[in-house]
Amino acid sequence: MSITINDIAKIANVSASTVSRVLNNSGYVKEDTKKRIEAVIKEMNYIPSAIARSLSKSETSTIGVIVPDITNSYFGEIIKGISEIAEKNNLNIILFNTDNYLHKEVNALKLLKEQRIQGIIMTPGFGEEKFNDDYINTIHNLNIPIILVSADITFTNLNGVFVDNVKGGFEATNLFIKEGHTKIAIITGLLSSEPAMDRLIGYKKALEINKIPVEEEYILSGEFKLEKAYELTKNLLKQKDHPTAMVVCSNMMTMGVIKAINEENKKIPDDLSIIGFDKNEFLDMVGLNITYLEDCPVELGIKAMNMLCDIIDKNGKNEVQRLTVAPQIIIKGSEKIINK
Amino acid sequence: MSITINDIAKIANVSASTVSRVLNNSGYVKEDTKKRIEAVIKEMNYIPSAIARSLSKSETSTIGVIVPDITNSYFGEIIKGISEIAEKNNLNIILFNTDNYLHKEVNALKLLKEQRIQGIIMTPGFGEEKFNDDYINTIHNLNIPIILVSADITFTNLNGVFVDNVKGGFEATNLFIKEGHTKIAIITGLLSSEPAMDRLIGYKKALEINKIPVEEEYILSGEFKLEKAYELTKNLLKQKDHPTAMVVCSNMMTMGVIKAINEENKKIPDDLSIIGFDKNEFLDMVGLNITYLEDCPVELGIKAMNMLCDIIDKNGKNEVQRLTVAPQIIIKGSEKIINK
Repeated sequence: MSITINDIAKIANVSASTVSRVLNNSGYVKEDTKKRIEAVIKEMNYIPSAIARSLSKSETSTIGVIVPDITNSYFGEIIKGISEIAEKNNLNIILFNTDNYLHKEVNALKLLKEQRIQGIIMTPGFGEEKFNDDYINTIHNLNIPIILVSADITFTNLNGVFVDNVKGGFEATNLFIKEGHTKIAIITGLLSSEPAMDRLIGYKKALEINKIPVEEEYILSGEFKLEKAYELTKNLLKQKDHPTAMVVCSNMMTMGVIKAINEENKKIPDDLSIIGFDKNEFLDMVGLNITYLEDCPVELGIKAMNMLCDIIDKNGKNEVQRLTVAPQIIIKGSEKIINK
Repeated sequence: MSITINDIAKIANVSASTVSRVLNNSGYVKEDTKKRIEAVIKEMNYIPSAIARSLSKSETSTIGVIVPDITNSYFGEIIKGISEIAEKNNLNIILFNTDNYLHKEVNALKLLKEQRIQGIIMTPGFGEEKFNDDYINTIHNLNIPIILVSADITFTNLNGVFVDNVKGGFEATNLFIKEGHTKIAIITGLLSSEPAMDRLIGYKKALEINKIPVEEEYILSGEFKLEKAYELTKNLLKQKDHPTAMVVCSNMMTMGVIKAINEENKKIPDDLSIIGFDKNEFLDMVGLNITYLEDCPVELGIKAMNMLCDIIDKNGKNEVQRLTVAPQIIIKGSEKIINK
């Protein structure tokens, strides 16, 4: 008694492959033939699972978005960019906030895989244990288009919109050198995160090109955390012969550094010159003009979402797309050398 | 040729209402009868829309979250609280960012109504044209549990977790009066927003109780916008006999006020005492100790999500739940009077 595609074909007086083309909305079918087939399908109340799936698909046009810290406005801006384009394309966003926990990221990916979503945009967290089998396997077995934004994942070759962080690290360090600094420290994130590692590579490159030796004690791991950057800077400022300049690799850490400088009654750039990463409007407002590398997170979100739409349109049958955006250096004066 | 519930009933040799009970999984049906009916349904490939709907429902356990500004960390923190509890309850979050546009809010509500979601948590925006028929009708016709968080909507009586903003406005103003201020201004949001209106009511109440006349020119509409608060404060500071104190009704506006004070080379609280709303860790870090009213957005998110879970458990058959949290005043010194 089960109704098959052949029954529909017989009643509509067409071949089964024609019915299939109508069901999948693929390939050419004459308009009146199409209408006749659709009428039969409706009359027979025939809903094969594939159709049921595609019906629901058109109802819940959703994409997944995974961010490591929803309370950081950097990620809020990425999401703002994503939603602008998602809205225009009638796509909903399922949001996961991982608090930088790898297990939450893996879990979000697994949950999204179970959903009938169109694709995923993700900023991987910057936890310590990135090179975890479960994680890499989950990503490899997704079978859903995925776009990384702002941070890459080692051992994978995924679509993504990235920032040229090597260039960022290089430019920051090079600007310090041009100003006359030779004792330049860097507060990095966890080196298991690509942006942190890349900024450090750029830092080292600038020193090497300028024949300044790389001092391992000037490379501080701030883990992208405000508190950690605060502690490291407090300790640094207590040293007699401390560096005169510091590259600070995230907006949260810049706040930690400023807190420390403030508590120690020191001044920027008189006691310590700094160059930060990411825009922080508030710094200007309070009269702290911090030079920074800017990567426009709203733009990254827009680019990532456009890339995902393109991949969805092509039905996933396209080459891996990887776009790298160069950060811009915004000079405000905090890089200057005052005391040599 | 269309297969109906009666066809299934005939083949399974039961009544149509028994089939219905199996389809809806409601009411008692003998186990072997149920199995027989299910076999027929499967054989006939019968999928009425209701079933299709309930099938998908169990797969996509989602709630909708609507916020007015995803780049403001206040809302990031609310979402953080919501996700913590959502995750524990295996609920996904579909996110909408409205950029404070009423039409985007209405659109988000309509889109969510079409989805098979379990409920909605929303912070209404603070646009000008709140009392719009389409808006109120959309909300009244949702038929999905909805929880408001942090801001109420006039003309509705919805579930929600609110902040006692009358108390907030009152306490801020009263603290200024205790310090000796008599010329106290307030920068409000748009008065079509409940929090803005409530804080103004509290402000007026404190003045009245203390027999200080309410001066209309001391009530400034900052529209919750940084730029607007900046301009208003610039103008205010240029007046010879300007107020000595100002209640600033949001963290974004506090930033605008500080920017203006800074540009005019004035000092807090020497030239203008201020009390803000919402925590801003950064202010402390740069040595600006601003007294503020704190309403713990992460906690609001947690409470809203717990309320939604409770309502889902009770299948929506419960009374309207409205919870009001008192804000806490965090005294830092910016309220002090220096020049009389």
